[in-house]
Amino acid sequence: MKHSIFTVVILAISVFLLPVHAGIKYVDASCLTLVGKGMSTPGNEYHRVDTAKYGDMPASVKHLFTYSAGLAVSFKTNSSTVAVRWTTKGRGVMGNMTPIAHRGLDLYMYAGGGWIPAGVGTPLAGKTEHECKIAQYLESGEHKFLLYLPLFEEILSLEIGVDSAAMIEAEPSPFRHKVLIYGSSILHGACASRAGLAYPARMSRSTGINFVNFGLSGRGKMEAAVADMLKDVDADAFILDCMPNPSPEEIVARTQYLVKTIREHHPGVPIIMIETYMRENGYSNRQVRERCLDQSKAFITQYELLKEQGVEDLYLIRDHHAIGTDHEGSSDGTHPNDLGFDRMVQQYQPQILDILKKYGIE
Amino acid sequence: MKHSIFTVVILAISVFLLPVHAGIKYVDASCLTLVGKGMSTPGNEYHRVDTAKYGDMPASVKHLFTYSAGLAVSFKTNSSTVAVRWTTKGRGVMGNMTPIAHRGLDLYMYAGGGWIPAGVGTPLAGKTEHECKIAQYLESGEHKFLLYLPLFEEILSLEIGVDSAAMIEAEPSPFRHKVLIYGSSILHGACASRAGLAYPARMSRSTGINFVNFGLSGRGKMEAAVADMLKDVDADAFILDCMPNPSPEEIVARTQYLVKTIREHHPGVPIIMIETYMRENGYSNRQVRERCLDQSKAFITQYELLKEQGVEDLYLIRDHHAIGTDHEGSSDGTHPNDLGFDRMVQQYQPQILDILKKYGIE
Repeated sequence: MKHSIFTVVILAISVFLLPVHAGIKYVDASCLTLVGKGMSTPGNEYHRVDTAKYGDMPASVKHLFTYSAGLAVSFKTNSSTVAVRWTTKGRGVMGNMTPIAHRGLDLYMYAGGGWIPAGVGTPLAGKTEHECKIAQYLESGEHKFLLYLPLFEEILSLEIGVDSAAMIEAEPSPFRHKVLIYGSSILHGACASRAGLAYPARMSRSTGINFVNFGLSGRGKMEAAVADMLKDVDADAFILDCMPNPSPEEIVARTQYLVKTIREHHPGVPIIMIETYMRENGYSNRQVRERCLDQSKAFITQYELLKEQGVEDLYLIRDHHAIGTDHEGSSDGTHPNDLGFDRMVQQYQPQILDILKKYGIE
Repeated sequence: MKHSIFTVVILAISVFLLPVHAGIKYVDASCLTLVGKGMSTPGNEYHRVDTAKYGDMPASVKHLFTYSAGLAVSFKTNSSTVAVRWTTKGRGVMGNMTPIAHRGLDLYMYAGGGWIPAGVGTPLAGKTEHECKIAQYLESGEHKFLLYLPLFEEILSLEIGVDSAAMIEAEPSPFRHKVLIYGSSILHGACASRAGLAYPARMSRSTGINFVNFGLSGRGKMEAAVADMLKDVDADAFILDCMPNPSPEEIVARTQYLVKTIREHHPGVPIIMIETYMRENGYSNRQVRERCLDQSKAFITQYELLKEQGVEDLYLIRDHHAIGTDHEGSSDGTHPNDLGFDRMVQQYQPQILDILKKYGIE
């Protein structure tokens, strides 16, 4: 490979500027393509919702919408190395998540007709500024990449580095349409081992359809202010995976407004309600079991009421042990692990695709 | 439930002594049954190997053998709540592991003819002393439990708490025979989301055979001092899942001594070598791919040489994409996630059982 004098000078300077990753040039990820957005977020492009515009939402909901769950950067490069530098707002630790999923990065490369994982960005313990070589010794030639952002943190800055002599360019989103999923921590990504294994991310890669992650850990409670925000999300379909967080009474009080608001502001667009599986602890803990059964009953009753009222293009996916029957699909008794998520995708995806197909979303 | 005056007095005192978990009495786990041990360890019963006795092993190997990977406490109780108090030596964070798997606890309960997860013990961030109610609102009656200990930490103390009026007793190990597995971080449990999902633990629960975890993250390198230690392990079978850590040259230099030492000191006992899968990063990273291929070649050549030399009762399990072909079975490009471990169990377990059956181990 030939280097120009300019490149050689840059390389020489880099030795002083970047002693750890000499020979790497960085670009700000904002120059590339951000995939998985539900709306524009002027305050910080790595937020999921414009929390200033929708200020009536509960503070905890607004906070969770600043997390970058489901977002990914699409780019191409011919570099043999991909490096990353990123800043997170927080430096905490979650007991049931890996730091990589919580505050780290997850790189996929397109190869052999599909997406393969190419490396993870491990955050530095107790720090907010992180840096690493995420992929190395790549085959020569140009490759497409998707870099998944942290599930449970706010990103303040993100740069992607490549060999000084290499090109790096924005690549269009590999996904078509826009299917918004609103819901709980399970949707949010707890407890995938890395961001690319959250179930909307897995379904996007395997179907080519853009599933947008509006999961809110502990707070997917169907508040009216959230329903009002969804009026402005220009989606081709809405999936409601929000049964786990609200109490049975909240399900009764809030489901009608949520569904009818979406129905009114997005006429003709399918709305799919998903019944959540019995949480694994429910097989030993009576209180958990009763709550899950009561939530299911309330959620399904609300679906039936809406159908009786003539709400159109509304669907329900019933649960059939979505994380399996061998009791090994949960990380912590509540959330799926990567095995549970795999089983959820096997169960949900064909049913979702069948419905979407009726609306030309395929 | 009737309480004696004595119980009421104890409860009243407990309110002052245990403000967080009032009404709970604790027993030291050393009074119960410890499952999954390879040998006795006088210095600390939650170690895996007596590191004083086998002082010639490398310091890093000795350190890793102080971790409680694969150990579990077997007990029964009629309590409606199970609480845990435990002390870990370290307080660190691993990027690719959940704190629950790293330093926490994982409780299984026997119900409906099988083992079901009943709760996890989440360690306190930055602390070495931890306490929580791990299971609550259990059905009345007596239940058997297995409490899995941390995969990547040394346990300094462990107490199990039950309702003041309840009984708690040692329960015999639910597993028969003793099959020792020696190997790498994959065996050790990286990156299961909790201790009970490491593959030896999964195989023990599903087969009833006692698989003992001698996994050493980054250090399953077949050193002669480790081979010498294995002379004293009274096992019914040995499985060698130690291909990932040694270099190809180390595999050539060390495999013969390891296998022949076991063969000589444990005549007639089966020895099963496992070829490791191509690490997921090997599909994008040329250097990783070449190293994996070279390791496989060296490992299989050593097996063939040993067979040619007439070493008896020696078996090889070849790899057939043990963590799957969809590229979703790894947490970090090297280690399986819970999905990868599930696929490994599906692939390894029937082959291992077929071999063990020939020796009456079933």
